[in-house]
Amino acid sequence: MQKKALLRRKLHKLGINGILITDLVNLRYLTGFTGSSGVLIITQKHAIFVTDFRYQEQAKQEIRGFEIRIERAERVNEIKKICEEYGIKKLGFEDHSVNYRLYKKLLRSKIRPHALTDIVESLRLIKSGKELSCIKTAVKRAETAFKKLQPFIRAGATEQKLAVRLEGLLKEEGCKIIPFGVIVASGLMSALPHAKPTNRILRKGDLIIFDWGGEYEGYYSDMTRTVVLESKNIGKQKELYSIILEAQERAIKTVKAGMKAAVIDAAARNYIKQKGYGNYFGHGTGHGVGLAVHEKPIISWRSEDMVENGMVFTIEPGVYLPGFGGVRIEDMVIVRKNNAEALTTLPKKLNVIR
Amino acid sequence: MQKKALLRRKLHKLGINGILITDLVNLRYLTGFTGSSGVLIITQKHAIFVTDFRYQEQAKQEIRGFEIRIERAERVNEIKKICEEYGIKKLGFEDHSVNYRLYKKLLRSKIRPHALTDIVESLRLIKSGKELSCIKTAVKRAETAFKKLQPFIRAGATEQKLAVRLEGLLKEEGCKIIPFGVIVASGLMSALPHAKPTNRILRKGDLIIFDWGGEYEGYYSDMTRTVVLESKNIGKQKELYSIILEAQERAIKTVKAGMKAAVIDAAARNYIKQKGYGNYFGHGTGHGVGLAVHEKPIISWRSEDMVENGMVFTIEPGVYLPGFGGVRIEDMVIVRKNNAEALTTLPKKLNVIR
Repeated sequence: MQKKALLRRKLHKLGINGILITDLVNLRYLTGFTGSSGVLIITQKHAIFVTDFRYQEQAKQEIRGFEIRIERAERVNEIKKICEEYGIKKLGFEDHSVNYRLYKKLLRSKIRPHALTDIVESLRLIKSGKELSCIKTAVKRAETAFKKLQPFIRAGATEQKLAVRLEGLLKEEGCKIIPFGVIVASGLMSALPHAKPTNRILRKGDLIIFDWGGEYEGYYSDMTRTVVLESKNIGKQKELYSIILEAQERAIKTVKAGMKAAVIDAAARNYIKQKGYGNYFGHGTGHGVGLAVHEKPIISWRSEDMVENGMVFTIEPGVYLPGFGGVRIEDMVIVRKNNAEALTTLPKKLNVIR
Repeated sequence: MQKKALLRRKLHKLGINGILITDLVNLRYLTGFTGSSGVLIITQKHAIFVTDFRYQEQAKQEIRGFEIRIERAERVNEIKKICEEYGIKKLGFEDHSVNYRLYKKLLRSKIRPHALTDIVESLRLIKSGKELSCIKTAVKRAETAFKKLQPFIRAGATEQKLAVRLEGLLKEEGCKIIPFGVIVASGLMSALPHAKPTNRILRKGDLIIFDWGGEYEGYYSDMTRTVVLESKNIGKQKELYSIILEAQERAIKTVKAGMKAAVIDAAARNYIKQKGYGNYFGHGTGHGVGLAVHEKPIISWRSEDMVENGMVFTIEPGVYLPGFGGVRIEDMVIVRKNNAEALTTLPKKLNVIR
């Protein structure tokens, strides 16, 4: 198994006998297990998956190439037993996933825990052809669902009803999981970057932000479109939209393999600043998407991440004017050697709905 | 504010200057904040809520009685600044919620972190009248949705379609969040206690487990019913059902304030053992439900928890025969001084669907 071999090579370099994987997304990445309880221990020679009784059948169905153990006592005792059995002296663990409580228990069990940062995440950063194809299907499902929602976006509808309908359409397209609660934020609510849908009724002149995603085989998509409901005076809405669209396209054009992620953020941010709205774009420009809807790399001014061939992330600048409204446009891209290829295909010309 | 005062009394007893709350559910419990990013620092005199730019407006709308700060740098630096400003020498933290990575960052920032276990959870254990009323509404929504699903449960339907429909009905009832993916597990699949719905078509003689929940104002409900599709030979299905029903009712009758949770588990487990199916009931008998769908207390043979007046939890024994199928029956109850009051009202007589 390719992934297991890559991980073992990393462990060998670090001089670590074995690693404990507790992050469920990393667990799924390595084993294919889709349940919500389990840990993995990998050494150079062995690979043991531990879960509880509830997932016995499911683990057998989903997992190949791992010894499957059903825990009968507290999990930390199972881990200890495996370490003794296989002579694991120094056990690597994921520092973002092991909480202080478990860490202390490992210490008390005389296991020598050794903190590791982003060890599986660094493998997940670069998408394989198979992964990319899953992501593309997740994008397609989300786009088809949104197209089917279009006729319902009109004055008089509520945010909540549109959100529920869009989630239903995503399920109809085959998404087993909705990666995050669909955001429909209209009028003044669109000034809240992560607003939850309310019972607010859509009115003429409203900016409406839709932020939603699809799923396929555990891989996600994430996209945002902002539309406006036709009215006499929507000059300001159009101005904000054209600024964000230009900023977003500049950021996409900036991308190539080998650059700092912060440079992409700067491309969008500097343009928005230049147009006088720098104070109203408070979040980062994007984030990786894969088996998690928010993963590495981080595309922001604070990011230390480098952008490499095969990474998939969002580019989603926005502007949020309290008391007025907001605009955000979000595409997913895959990084190629000299450019970024857009995975999102929905049009970006401002949709003025009559 | 009652909750803040209770927490401060606990801190005072522990001799701790301040506490860092990172668990988002605990955060919601204490502040009402429904966003997905933020931390709280509480001292005897001050209460500061820290979030990022995205939640600025939302925090203002949702939170009363806390100073709201928007972080501009890495969160740990904001925490450090607050500790310096308010003279917090020893900062309590939640040991289940702070991961090793954050713990190390706190140490490096010269904050003296002090691990605390279940400090807010111990407050959440006992439900107030207001909380109970939210939970009851969450139960009602889940029950109404399930009643509306009844006509669609028949041979020829698929698990997946029933699950999607039930989730849609929950949303229609007003649930903003579906607490967990609805489980519809039929025939052989019902032998997997946490099966995900598949495209399997329901057939005569199938046992079908429905495990689902509702939501109201962030509070959840969780319930399970097993039905059977009429067929010539369903003697075994009926036998399993009657054993689990008796076990479940015995467990409920056992409950009173002041007892060990493990005693409730034993009431169900011993009966199932006595009937010869002890090896096929591998999970615990129940768990608390509130702002989290799985919370304290734990009702299992391994539990050290005590049962007190005002606790709300599930009672859900089950039996899972590989290659045949399973039965689970789950109600929610609230503990009273001398007994348990069922919150779930759906009938439990075996529903044989023609």
